[in-house]
Amino acid sequence: MKFSFKNDYSEGCHPNILQALLQYNLDQQAGYGEDEYSLQAKALIKQKIKKEDSEVYFVSGGTQANLIVISSLLKPYQCVVSASTGHILNNETGAIEATGHKVLNIETEDGKLRPSDIIPVLENHKNVPHQVMPKLVYISNSTELGTIYQAKELEELSAFCKQNHLYLFMDGARLGHGLTSEISDLNLEKVAVLTDIFYLGGTKNGALIGEAIVINNPLLQEDFAFNIKQKGALLAKGRLLGIQFLELMKNDLYFDLAKHANRQAMKIKKVLQEKGVKFLSDTYTNQIFPILNNDLIQILSENFEFYIWKKVDDQFSAIRLITSWNTGDEAVNRFVEIIEKE
Amino acid sequence: MKFSFKNDYSEGCHPNILQALLQYNLDQQAGYGEDEYSLQAKALIKQKIKKEDSEVYFVSGGTQANLIVISSLLKPYQCVVSASTGHILNNETGAIEATGHKVLNIETEDGKLRPSDIIPVLENHKNVPHQVMPKLVYISNSTELGTIYQAKELEELSAFCKQNHLYLFMDGARLGHGLTSEISDLNLEKVAVLTDIFYLGGTKNGALIGEAIVINNPLLQEDFAFNIKQKGALLAKGRLLGIQFLELMKNDLYFDLAKHANRQAMKIKKVLQEKGVKFLSDTYTNQIFPILNNDLIQILSENFEFYIWKKVDDQFSAIRLITSWNTGDEAVNRFVEIIEKE
Amino acid sequence: MKFSFKNDYSEGCHPNILQALLQYNLDQQAGYGEDEYSLQAKALIKQKIKKEDSEVYFVSGGTQANLIVISSLLKPYQCVVSASTGHILNNETGAIEATGHKVLNIETEDGKLRPSDIIPVLENHKNVPHQVMPKLVYISNSTELGTIYQAKELEELSAFCKQNHLYLFMDGARLGHGLTSEISDLNLEKVAVLTDIFYLGGTKNGALIGEAIVINNPLLQEDFAFNIKQKGALLAKGRLLGIQFLELMKNDLYFDLAKHANRQAMKIKKVLQEKGVKFLSDTYTNQIFPILNNDLIQILSENFEFYIWKKVDDQFSAIRLITSWNTGDEAVNRFVEIIEKE
Amino acid sequence: MKFSFKNDYSEGCHPNILQALLQYNLDQQAGYGEDEYSLQAKALIKQKIKKEDSEVYFVSGGTQANLIVISSLLKPYQCVVSASTGHILNNETGAIEATGHKVLNIETEDGKLRPSDIIPVLENHKNVPHQVMPKLVYISNSTELGTIYQAKELEELSAFCKQNHLYLFMDGARLGHGLTSEISDLNLEKVAVLTDIFYLGGTKNGALIGEAIVINNPLLQEDFAFNIKQKGALLAKGRLLGIQFLELMKNDLYFDLAKHANRQAMKIKKVLQEKGVKFLSDTYTNQIFPILNNDLIQILSENFEFYIWKKVDDQFSAIRLITSWNTGDEAVNRFVEIIEKE
Repeated sequence: MKFSFKNDYSEGCHPNILQALLQYNLDQQAGYGEDEYSLQAKALIKQKIKKEDSEVYFVSGGTQANLIVISSLLKPYQCVVSASTGHILNNETGAIEATGHKVLNIETEDGKLRPSDIIPVLENHKNVPHQVMPKLVYISNSTELGTIYQAKELEELSAFCKQNHLYLFMDGARLGHGLTSEISDLNLEKVAVLTDIFYLGGTKNGALIGEAIVINNPLLQEDFAFNIKQKGALLAKGRLLGIQFLELMKNDLYFDLAKHANRQAMKIKKVLQEKGVKFLSDTYTNQIFPILNNDLIQILSENFEFYIWKKVDDQFSAIRLITSWNTGDEAVNRFVEIIEKE
Repeated sequence: MKFSFKNDYSEGCHPNILQALLQYNLDQQAGYGEDEYSLQAKALIKQKIKKEDSEVYFVSGGTQANLIVISSLLKPYQCVVSASTGHILNNETGAIEATGHKVLNIETEDGKLRPSDIIPVLENHKNVPHQVMPKLVYISNSTELGTIYQAKELEELSAFCKQNHLYLFMDGARLGHGLTSEISDLNLEKVAVLTDIFYLGGTKNGALIGEAIVINNPLLQEDFAFNIKQKGALLAKGRLLGIQFLELMKNDLYFDLAKHANRQAMKIKKVLQEKGVKFLSDTYTNQIFPILNNDLIQILSENFEFYIWKKVDDQFSAIRLITSWNTGDEAVNRFVEIIEKE
Repeated sequence: MKFSFKNDYSEGCHPNILQALLQYNLDQQAGYGEDEYSLQAKALIKQKIKKEDSEVYFVSGGTQANLIVISSLLKPYQCVVSASTGHILNNETGAIEATGHKVLNIETEDGKLRPSDIIPVLENHKNVPHQVMPKLVYISNSTELGTIYQAKELEELSAFCKQNHLYLFMDGARLGHGLTSEISDLNLEKVAVLTDIFYLGGTKNGALIGEAIVINNPLLQEDFAFNIKQKGALLAKGRLLGIQFLELMKNDLYFDLAKHANRQAMKIKKVLQEKGVKFLSDTYTNQIFPILNNDLIQILSENFEFYIWKKVDDQFSAIRLITSWNTGDEAVNRFVEIIEKE
Repeated sequence: MKFSFKNDYSEGCHPNILQALLQYNLDQQAGYGEDEYSLQAKALIKQKIKKEDSEVYFVSGGTQANLIVISSLLKPYQCVVSASTGHILNNETGAIEATGHKVLNIETEDGKLRPSDIIPVLENHKNVPHQVMPKLVYISNSTELGTIYQAKELEELSAFCKQNHLYLFMDGARLGHGLTSEISDLNLEKVAVLTDIFYLGGTKNGALIGEAIVINNPLLQEDFAFNIKQKGALLAKGRLLGIQFLELMKNDLYFDLAKHANRQAMKIKKVLQEKGVKFLSDTYTNQIFPILNNDLIQILSENFEFYIWKKVDDQFSAIRLITSWNTGDEAVNRFVEIIEKE
């Protein structure tokens, strides 16, 4: 069977998680997230972000997190602003619109939003009450293109949102990868200070399922649990989420796993760069988009699974490689060997 | 720590499931339910119901299953009919209404719907187009009161629905318990023939999470997966659901677990009956509602956790006891001892 | 053609309104409710209720008013409480649920809600976050049964709502009839003080279309216009609504029309009472529900149109008679004559 | 007071309509569109389109028509495709999204959609079930830019939609203007054959309110009235809509009014063209977008009201002029005089 670089959720979960599930399996616990593991995991997250007044909720996946957060924050006539690559725009089957809210699209090169991107949107939405009211800025870190926000960028965006009465929501499906990127100067504490709400993604970083939604803005915390229940996201056995995040947060396993994934991608990137290969975007996380000769792609595809992302010209295409917490050296070395041979 | 009879989702999962999760953990698999375990589990379910043309989808929990099924089947002006005890009516934070559909309430004694309950609803909804159109009949088996449908009852209801162009949807959160009840003459095959759509509940019968939605009516199958994705219910690691149902379906573990839970409840019931205790409803599944003297309730509550369900008079209240796949003889025996002592 | 007592919207509109539409017809005006007639009508309403800080919006009809008000006030997990006769419950094709909100039903005899009706609902909705949160109390005045709220009743209900953080919303589709009832001690000023939001119905009281929504609670006023536009209720030619309410409010035509309708119904009621006829409910507005011998009903139906409301026994049924701003003495006298003859 | 070229809904309605409202005012009629005027008007429309099996419904305005049509036709995961200038995209406060459906944006020069515009959208939405499914093509005729579809263009688009199982819906808020344009070779019959559903706009063509939705595709007709009621669009006094459309359809008043509006715009256009003025788009309906020197704009704005549409450079801007059924020669001549003087 070919090794897959298709995504970072091809395997099960980090073995520590399964061990913990085994260990605690027969304990009787309260349902719906009131179990002791969930409570401990929430406490641990709040400790890591150094914000005791934040609130933490666990849900199963990213689309679920996105639709619950957005529909609970917005009034019916308010809308979301997203980069054109935003997961909510094209990859969630209209989940946000299904809750009644428009997602406004902003074309960007690198998957990131800056105040200068948002200003024209605000200016073009002043025909009250004939247009939706932009109210929430949705960003991803790392982005869907593998790029990341630097501290300064997030600070500027955060300040801009405050000035303009916009909520700032960070989709952290790959937040571990974003924060442990070799070029990142952001950390979890700063993210918690600079966003109104964000989530720590587990599914793409070693958990079976699970995203930890962190609500930093106290005004947005009230009654949040109702929204989780109403959208079918409150697990009877909330322990499944609690135990996983407890393990991931302990000893910073979460960040170690992401760092590993990033490192494996960077190894491949480095070799490709040495061979003069160009990339679709300049990434420092676990996603890389090298532009390769179609012949080489053909050879690689006989040995590995990955997505062909975009045709560049008749001879070249960009492919997408994603590494995970479980991408071993062997797979990386074999990949590198093939490249070096060609 | 007191043993809890509060519900059937207090523990983790059956050990076979954890073993399977461990065994398959590092296999790379396709995401979003296209993994081989999910495919095998679906095939196995279709084999058990002997309906190759049914379609099977896995989701995380009951509220999620209910809201996806109902919102995908109904047009905007159509509504659901439910017994007054129906889970969707009072225990799901308006999840169905949040998708735009009214749930019409029918008062019943035993949590079950019969044609005679539904006829007046249809007659009272003929003021076209000023009223919602009843289109889907929602039933639970076993019901929220622990009662079950017999084959004849389901046949009559099914025929009535067909005649009246109503969909019949069975919430099977506790379907295992319903079908393995000592008095049940229904089985999975019959359920598949008599309903348009139903689900097999895993969460309350030994899984960590998971319900298997089975769509029997071919007209309702088209594009169903879109609805799962849109509601945030499509797990990236669908394997988590597939592996669990594969284990539960193998060798009928699913039914063995339910049978065990039922048996433990019936042991307690028998002893209580011998002591002359009355019950709120006459159940043969894993939920019993004995009416006890408040003093006895007090003593029991020092040793066990359970819900006080309903005050009957100044001296007596009904309590709810739920047993699970993991309720051991020790807990049952201790409970029985206390009763027999009093 | 038979004269119809079926409802109060069988005719066009009061002639003054058509005269005003003619008079102002070719003036060019700003669109979307910014025309001078709408502005004047709003000012006049605020003057009548003596609340300068209330906000007034015009929409086309009652269902529209109900769905806009309710969906704009509630968060996704909040719900409405309504008497079982409430128009939103059974006569609006699930319009409220279509915006995502449950309507909880309270059985009442006379179509009115009292704190004692609502207390049990609040007590039965404390299982956070598994149930909807009751947040808005919907009442009608006059009610769908023709009954009315007295000042003391509304004061008690208003105080109760404040204490329990519930919004109080009065559907005033027949507010004119309610307030001009011979037994009413309420008036527009008190209604504005005691409710968070209400509307003055035009459609059933001499307008072609139109309801005037009055928002008294300043916290509920923000951005309300967006909701009107989003639900398709913002008329390009808002003048049509403005001109009508300007005419209706001038010289209290609105109340004169309602008083006339009430008076005509009371004339019939009085004669029936003198003949010993009983009524389904004791009303003092433009709806009466006499219980008549089927033979008499047959004779009446050869001369008039009306609804047979409810079978009482084999010999008697209740009919519903509704009078309007335009029900003339001739029709009333003819009706009375037939009764007196029998 | 300055004459306004701001839009085509500044005045009341054509005098014939007010006369008819007066004439029929005191007739008692059935409510909710069952009045005889509505029935006659529907019959007349079906006769004009020569499609007896089409169904006709009247609603109050364009946003209402759009949201009812779209939400009644689509399943939850299906979406709309619209030109970037489409009214539903930016001018209806997210009305479509509020019913749960995404609107996909296609950039166009002239406000029109062609198969070649839609093909890439279909190709980019094949990642089942992770993306919305394009299902309905929304077009306007005349468009929001004043341009129109020729018969050949609509035929091609219609055939393309059929091949691709897409519904074709024409927003006809200005359909009269589109069809009576001096360059149009389309007519009402062809529109009815080539679209699944369309509407005839009254509000912008001489009615007080009202759009006539015509459903040509029999599969889309079932139970449509429920949707109108549920969205709050079913007027109790449906006669108001019926009487208006009866007058507009009689003797083709509808088309005469539109033709007049077009003619007045074309007079201005011709003079501007003779002076060498350029236009933002080449229109033959009642909207023109001349690009004028800022000094001239200043002078004109002292005498007329109109929108400055778009800054072209430091010296020039495009303005939007809209003429209506009631734009008299005097206003046009005065406008022309000023231009000719400069």
